[in-house]
Amino acid sequence: MTVRPSRFWALALIAAWISTATAQTDPLPSWNDGPAKQAIVAFVTDVTREGSPDFIPPPERVATFDNDGTLWIEQPIYVQFAFALARVKELAPLHPEWKDTQPFKAVLDGDLAALAAAGEHGAAEIVATTHAGMTPEAFRQIVRDWLAAARHPRFDRPYEELVYQPMLELLAYMRANGFKTFIVSGGGIEFVRAFAETCYGIPPEQVVGSSIVTKFETRDGRSVLIRLPKVNFIDDGAGKPVGIEEHIGRRPVAAFGNSDGDLRMLQWTTEASGRRLGVVVHHTDAAREYAYDRQSKVGRLDKALEAAATDRWTVIDMKRDWKTVFPFERSLASHPPIRHGVADP
Amino acid sequence: MTVRPSRFWALALIAAWISTATAQTDPLPSWNDGPAKQAIVAFVTDVTREGSPDFIPPPERVATFDNDGTLWIEQPIYVQFAFALARVKELAPLHPEWKDTQPFKAVLDGDLAALAAAGEHGAAEIVATTHAGMTPEAFRQIVRDWLAAARHPRFDRPYEELVYQPMLELLAYMRANGFKTFIVSGGGIEFVRAFAETCYGIPPEQVVGSSIVTKFETRDGRSVLIRLPKVNFIDDGAGKPVGIEEHIGRRPVAAFGNSDGDLRMLQWTTEASGRRLGVVVHHTDAAREYAYDRQSKVGRLDKALEAAATDRWTVIDMKRDWKTVFPFERSLASHPPIRHGVADP
Repeated sequence: MTVRPSRFWALALIAAWISTATAQTDPLPSWNDGPAKQAIVAFVTDVTREGSPDFIPPPERVATFDNDGTLWIEQPIYVQFAFALARVKELAPLHPEWKDTQPFKAVLDGDLAALAAAGEHGAAEIVATTHAGMTPEAFRQIVRDWLAAARHPRFDRPYEELVYQPMLELLAYMRANGFKTFIVSGGGIEFVRAFAETCYGIPPEQVVGSSIVTKFETRDGRSVLIRLPKVNFIDDGAGKPVGIEEHIGRRPVAAFGNSDGDLRMLQWTTEASGRRLGVVVHHTDAAREYAYDRQSKVGRLDKALEAAATDRWTVIDMKRDWKTVFPFERSLASHPPIRHGVADP
Repeated sequence: MTVRPSRFWALALIAAWISTATAQTDPLPSWNDGPAKQAIVAFVTDVTREGSPDFIPPPERVATFDNDGTLWIEQPIYVQFAFALARVKELAPLHPEWKDTQPFKAVLDGDLAALAAAGEHGAAEIVATTHAGMTPEAFRQIVRDWLAAARHPRFDRPYEELVYQPMLELLAYMRANGFKTFIVSGGGIEFVRAFAETCYGIPPEQVVGSSIVTKFETRDGRSVLIRLPKVNFIDDGAGKPVGIEEHIGRRPVAAFGNSDGDLRMLQWTTEASGRRLGVVVHHTDAAREYAYDRQSKVGRLDKALEAAATDRWTVIDMKRDWKTVFPFERSLASHPPIRHGVADP
């Protein structure tokens, strides 16, 4: 069947009108209309509708999000680990002795086996060198400077562009529905704070993470805080509910994670009475991002995937559920410009 | 001079009109129009006016408030200490051995000298008995139950009625101007959370305080958090800037305290560049509340009062600056009912 030009334009106009209407009413345009999106929208709708048996008052609408692998990329190595390795290399000229001293030699030689062999003690030395000895403000600036220059090895883009577009939409959608969105990360609290506000719109006071000890001092009559090379708190696994209690003081009603490090947070959230939402991001898309779960060293997802089935958590199948993965895909999309403009709220 | 009835009513109407106009524009009606009120209003006005050289963007409008002696009463003993002593007495029937065991015997006998002699070890035992061994939720409920029943020894009112009316107005005024208000207390974080939301409108995630260790466990297949009898963090003195960094991750632009325990927080806040506000509540009103400073064991104010003069902090002279101290005074006021109604926003 051939379509006459006038009919073509009529159809195009109708398509554009539908697209506009959808874009205006769909707060999650980068999500395919599958079970994950439906479960999330049903939860938000049900708990925010006055008179609903599932209604949750606004002050109790606390939603917690893991960061690595849930809000941004974590493969092939955690971004913070890439930062630490880069910092060692950057500081190496000031430390000629590192050429012959582990674990620094391993970092400089790119010898991951030797780095692994250096174990916890080695990791502590790297943290001391790269994360301690300065003020929190200075540390966050070092992180921001590094983020501005660093590129992901596969995508050759700044890490801040490798956040998940569907999760950005989800954060905005939940906030628009009266939820307070928190990051609860196994990563360093000050590391995450360096970009959480610009990347996700999450202010520093809504970031929970691992920390090293910070000490108050008076230097030349001025107050300073100094980061010490000593672990204060590990906000991972069973540490996540503890960090949530200490920082938020309220049990979340929705939690989002992607690895076994999030298992306890998901259980802690969804075991409470009342309507609750647990969500696991399952990385199933080797073409657009990565595919990994049970066997992965980074972001291993095994027990939490099993628990998702029995505890009725929502599993996001990245390949199936996400129309786009990264924000930059949208500007590369092959839509005619006008439709692309319409589809972008 | 005699005033004719018609003239009397005309004057009364004008007075009522002026009173209404003032009440509608004055967000701090319980403050006398002195230097303290003027300094606070000038600060808020200057930092919130677009284009002002002192303008502070909303996300950076972090204001921190000490609790004991700044937002509510702390004499003759800290409320949390009164709670701990009452809990020991309440639990005593379950522990007949306490009659002969310190520090419990001292508490039961009301022997403050013996209690002081029991020292830190004794205090730790009392904390373990009264603050640990349960979930944070259960602990907050115990605190709320106690607060509902307990009465202040002098005022014979619940402690929650012994909050400072001018500070309630100040919290609301600052929030209306885009400030996020945080409590930064030397007291226990979960103790303060038990009443902060209802008393001050400050949600649990905006409370920073001292803490004991909390541990995650799985009991009968369910997640639980248990409070352990072990100090985690002391949020007092030099601990306040550390607690602020850990919880808020931003340096406050305004800080309010009343004792030397707030000195470091006030310095940390006001030493930063840009327009900053440091405020010290000076208890000068033995008639309506208490008068104490340098010699007081509770809420000792010595170095911070000295620093206030050199660092140009605002000192609230309770007797001079506060028209009313406690909310209940307003309902006891001798205004004719209609004017009282008008004056109360």
